Amino acid sequence: MAMGNGSQAAKRIAILGASGYTGVELLRMLAHHPDAAIVALTADRQAGKEIGTVFPHLLIRDLPRLIEIRDVDWSSVDLVFCCLPHGTTQDVIAGLPKHLRILDLSADFRLADPEVYATWYGHPHRALALQQEAVYGLTEIERHAIANARLVAVPGCYPTGAQLPLVPLVKAAVIDADDIVIDAKSGVTGAGRGLRESSLFAEVSEGINAYGVASHRHMPEIEQGLSRAAARPIKVSFTPHLMPMNRGILSTIYVRYAKGATLMDLRRVLEDAYRDESFVRVLPADAMPATRHVRGSNLCLIGLAQDRLSGRAIVISAIDNLVKGASGQAIQDMNVMLGLDETTGLEQEPLFP
Amino acid sequence: MAMGNGSQAAKRIAILGASGYTGVELLRMLAHHPDAAIVALTADRQAGKEIGTVFPHLLIRDLPRLIEIRDVDWSSVDLVFCCLPHGTTQDVIAGLPKHLRILDLSADFRLADPEVYATWYGHPHRALALQQEAVYGLTEIERHAIANARLVAVPGCYPTGAQLPLVPLVKAAVIDADDIVIDAKSGVTGAGRGLRESSLFAEVSEGINAYGVASHRHMPEIEQGLSRAAARPIKVSFTPHLMPMNRGILSTIYVRYAKGATLMDLRRVLEDAYRDESFVRVLPADAMPATRHVRGSNLCLIGLAQDRLSGRAIVISAIDNLVKGASGQAIQDMNVMLGLDETTGLEQEPLFP
Amino acid sequence: MAMGNGSQAAKRIAILGASGYTGVELLRMLAHHPDAAIVALTADRQAGKEIGTVFPHLLIRDLPRLIEIRDVDWSSVDLVFCCLPHGTTQDVIAGLPKHLRILDLSADFRLADPEVYATWYGHPHRALALQQEAVYGLTEIERHAIANARLVAVPGCYPTGAQLPLVPLVKAAVIDADDIVIDAKSGVTGAGRGLRESSLFAEVSEGINAYGVASHRHMPEIEQGLSRAAARPIKVSFTPHLMPMNRGILSTIYVRYAKGATLMDLRRVLEDAYRDESFVRVLPADAMPATRHVRGSNLCLIGLAQDRLSGRAIVISAIDNLVKGASGQAIQDMNVMLGLDETTGLEQEPLFP
Amino acid sequence: MAMGNGSQAAKRIAILGASGYTGVELLRMLAHHPDAAIVALTADRQAGKEIGTVFPHLLIRDLPRLIEIRDVDWSSVDLVFCCLPHGTTQDVIAGLPKHLRILDLSADFRLADPEVYATWYGHPHRALALQQEAVYGLTEIERHAIANARLVAVPGCYPTGAQLPLVPLVKAAVIDADDIVIDAKSGVTGAGRGLRESSLFAEVSEGINAYGVASHRHMPEIEQGLSRAAARPIKVSFTPHLMPMNRGILSTIYVRYAKGATLMDLRRVLEDAYRDESFVRVLPADAMPATRHVRGSNLCLIGLAQDRLSGRAIVISAIDNLVKGASGQAIQDMNVMLGLDETTGLEQEPLFP
Repeated sequence: MAMGNGSQAAKRIAILGASGYTGVELLRMLAHHPDAAIVALTADRQAGKEIGTVFPHLLIRDLPRLIEIRDVDWSSVDLVFCCLPHGTTQDVIAGLPKHLRILDLSADFRLADPEVYATWYGHPHRALALQQEAVYGLTEIERHAIANARLVAVPGCYPTGAQLPLVPLVKAAVIDADDIVIDAKSGVTGAGRGLRESSLFAEVSEGINAYGVASHRHMPEIEQGLSRAAARPIKVSFTPHLMPMNRGILSTIYVRYAKGATLMDLRRVLEDAYRDESFVRVLPADAMPATRHVRGSNLCLIGLAQDRLSGRAIVISAIDNLVKGASGQAIQDMNVMLGLDETTGLEQEPLFP
Repeated sequence: MAMGNGSQAAKRIAILGASGYTGVELLRMLAHHPDAAIVALTADRQAGKEIGTVFPHLLIRDLPRLIEIRDVDWSSVDLVFCCLPHGTTQDVIAGLPKHLRILDLSADFRLADPEVYATWYGHPHRALALQQEAVYGLTEIERHAIANARLVAVPGCYPTGAQLPLVPLVKAAVIDADDIVIDAKSGVTGAGRGLRESSLFAEVSEGINAYGVASHRHMPEIEQGLSRAAARPIKVSFTPHLMPMNRGILSTIYVRYAKGATLMDLRRVLEDAYRDESFVRVLPADAMPATRHVRGSNLCLIGLAQDRLSGRAIVISAIDNLVKGASGQAIQDMNVMLGLDETTGLEQEPLFP
Repeated sequence: MAMGNGSQAAKRIAILGASGYTGVELLRMLAHHPDAAIVALTADRQAGKEIGTVFPHLLIRDLPRLIEIRDVDWSSVDLVFCCLPHGTTQDVIAGLPKHLRILDLSADFRLADPEVYATWYGHPHRALALQQEAVYGLTEIERHAIANARLVAVPGCYPTGAQLPLVPLVKAAVIDADDIVIDAKSGVTGAGRGLRESSLFAEVSEGINAYGVASHRHMPEIEQGLSRAAARPIKVSFTPHLMPMNRGILSTIYVRYAKGATLMDLRRVLEDAYRDESFVRVLPADAMPATRHVRGSNLCLIGLAQDRLSGRAIVISAIDNLVKGASGQAIQDMNVMLGLDETTGLEQEPLFP
Repeated sequence: MAMGNGSQAAKRIAILGASGYTGVELLRMLAHHPDAAIVALTADRQAGKEIGTVFPHLLIRDLPRLIEIRDVDWSSVDLVFCCLPHGTTQDVIAGLPKHLRILDLSADFRLADPEVYATWYGHPHRALALQQEAVYGLTEIERHAIANARLVAVPGCYPTGAQLPLVPLVKAAVIDADDIVIDAKSGVTGAGRGLRESSLFAEVSEGINAYGVASHRHMPEIEQGLSRAAARPIKVSFTPHLMPMNRGILSTIYVRYAKGATLMDLRRVLEDAYRDESFVRVLPADAMPATRHVRGSNLCLIGLAQDRLSGRAIVISAIDNLVKGASGQAIQDMNVMLGLDETTGLEQEPLFP
């Protein structure tokens, strides 16, 4: 049973792993998408349930019952959003029929280099051909490749917040790509809906902490993007922090100017890169982004300032980790794949306060 | 200049007091309303500023600059949302041209009885004719009167959460209207954006408290609605509580069955009342509403349970105080006044988490 | 080895189930107790670990390593705090040596009537003799029995917040004991440190909801206390709500005056009952308690007001659920059992903000 | 009348500006200090009120009524904590009798260089002799000078969190003092109890942002401390961020090794510096501090890690901004000034959760 918004030509959508936060966020944003009809929702451990028993705020929506992946009728599906855990995703996607176009929100197909993947995930990739085929779904940067892709690896949340400001700066060589320090701060939903002590309210509220210091798996993903931009291997300093809030990533990025460059050059490069974009905005000189200014929207806001240390600048980006950092960007990629206006279904304004 | 969504026939909207939370919430929800074009925003103390300096998340929207009320060109306005403080609102509205249709979000025109108004607000009403003309904007209950109204008094947040479940129950006489206890819990935005110590983060977070015990001004508004429903004077016990969250009102309502009535009767009455409504839903027997299930949406969810004490039931409603409790209901009323589909511009799904 | 505060005569303390929130709260409050030396900490699933790996803020304390219960050397222990889950606690305590004095923070020994226990917990009690022996540890009410008890059942958090104001009122017959509605609101730590979806940050923050409506197991415990006070069976309406905060319970209690009684009578009864108490305070007429005013302390604050409905009053109490609602009251009980000043080790002031 | 803890020899304490968060935190921590008797509390705008009407959680304490500064009987006071706003503080302290010892929690006497002060505060200092006399109260670093001081400038919250790890590292020359990036994250109480829109719950919760980028007044204070340690002028990159929590500062510090130095050198330097300290702890290699592990306590926890970029390390410190970052350190300084055990009155354990 599709949602009521399906036009004749609406693509038939399946969401695999619909019981997590990225799955439910897809449901929120696709609710009024004129070209998407949700025909299948899977959640293996909760198969048989109504989605409204998993997410009570969906009780009043008319959505398909949760089923197991193996019970999906693929002949009635055009496009798949895959919101499964990394590691198992590669096996699931390898088994899907070839007529499907796939947007994968896991980490399985983000790292193009099999060796880098094996190093960071501790085992060889089990779907190497797909890994090579997958297109990296950072929309503003990879738009042309995404248009024709069958399998899109939707970027991680931290890599989205870091790369959107950094890729143009590195590409234009206005900053020293070997001296980039990224201090990132994320809301709790970035850790998913899994049951972990570190995600409990009483362990998160009224406190902050760094985690995965010098070892977070989003680091090689950021480095991959910057290395492409620099056309040589780049490493970064990246430290994620857990914040007592649901949504949002603020990336405070400390950079050194390339020889001769100034803050005006950085600003000009970013403004040129994003002038025609719908979702990325460079703020005026006296403004700095806050995550609450993008909550619930697909926006990425970027601010810049001259640092106190001469020769250095501070670049700050804000995204909603569940939207531009996950499900929103996935839909934006879908729109590109389907030749639709990129903003279709993504018009939600930020919810403030 | 107006927002880009204005069709030829779009109504030209002014928002008076656009720098508060209900004003900015109107801007969020009207952003994609096909029949509304925002042509004027006022904020007397911030006149001359761009709205984006008051609400940075609006930096990227194309909205009119803030002006003083006296500088509005009323000939270019069809409809006014008035988000001014109570007390002064009656003077402002009394001075507006008569061709305007007005949705007032203050408390000034909610109490129809001049004596009740004078008792609770400490001074006689200064626009008695308008007070008599005003229609109470609880959409589901007063829809027909709203359709033809020139001036609509949009209900208070607590009264909306309390009356939606209670008015049908009182009208159907399935509960004892003289023994109603309403324990209401609200997010902080209910207190507005004004600077008060009690709204500071450090005074609100990690704690809860009752306030305005037996003296809150929303009490006579609730009593007015229930008295109309009962066709006799009704008083209620109403205790509001401040919650460490931005949005949402949960009303836990303790009622006694009318003689012979049962929980099934209460359920049937509410289901009958709201079966065809877009925004009010009675939950199934095993579900209870939570404010997070309506956040950012115009929904009102209602749940019911038999109490432990025989002869008593518990009725719980959840709304977003800024949406169904304020700006969303105001737009719903506007849609009724303009003969539009009531859901136009109000399709936002709840934002969870 | 024991903490350094142990005097020669210090009692040797074991904490069973030290890896949960009530266990760690005992460690906080006993840290500077002059008559308590912590000699054993158990946590079966985490045995072998330092407590500092379970609670990093204890990394810098000199505390015994976590062990299994069966590995405790009981000959070196005088007194046990038992912070184990209900259901299994009765078996553990039944197996402890008889020289130990025991403060049990589980629900296992709170309900004196075996039939009531069986009804609410779904199985017969497995340690009936102990159940009869156990003394209910609501310090201010049961002080004399506690002094000589071997086994004390420390009250539940909600029952503490409800009974402290209600027991004197019921005993003095100034309220109608058959018409008591308790609307209680609790912080998340009341649900413990177990991994449940409903305790995740993203499921709790920015929202509230009722739960266990008309079915929460603290209801019969409250009824037991009020029935004793009334010397006849009493039932109550009790609805708990989950709040987006760590600590605190606010109980808003709606009562009807007994014939001839007034608010002044209620105030007088409570002031008389608690005049000489260190931890229970009746607030002046114009003040109402907030949970943030007791955070981290063993206080219970009580406020009263005349209701809008004639013949009715509103009584509000605030406690910290982990202190007066659990570990603090347990230590207060211990002090009574040991003949110490009741406030020993409980001098922590509220942490505000 | 004084609090009951005053022994014969107790110092008589006045707190100027007792109605703010640092003032009330002094009251919390001094409550059980055996050598301090609070004899005067001032709050000019609230003079005449009981402190319990300003901070309801103090309703039940026996504390002096609030008075104006000019009404203090200085002959009955030995020692003053000054919690007044910067700018006016210098005038107030200049007017105090000379027998008083003074701990100033404002920024007025922290910057020793009059030119630096004038640059950052926009006007010449008006009490230059006092500015030269004042001792900087970073206890662990300036203990000997503090012991004999009459006027102590208690350090800012950010400077405390930054200097405690950095001063020893710079002094030992194991890091490059010209390449220090400090990304600091603070709870809201750091902004005080003043009424500002940016401190409202709805503007703070569910979001984060940087502020004062490259312009915060705590930057020259950090630079002053590091310049002393390096014995040459040092500048730093310092970016503060506002967090949705009450208390806590996490400082994530990105440093470059001095030639030949390694992480082990940094660890050794810090462990040597703080081995005998009661309140500063270097965490083991696999642990990183979190602000919730120091909440309500005077602790500073420090963790270290090798960065992903070779030649770089990450140093993280956590303090409670109201305790070690303000009132706790003030009391620690007082203890040093009075020749008491430094931990007296500061034994409060962290409140977790």
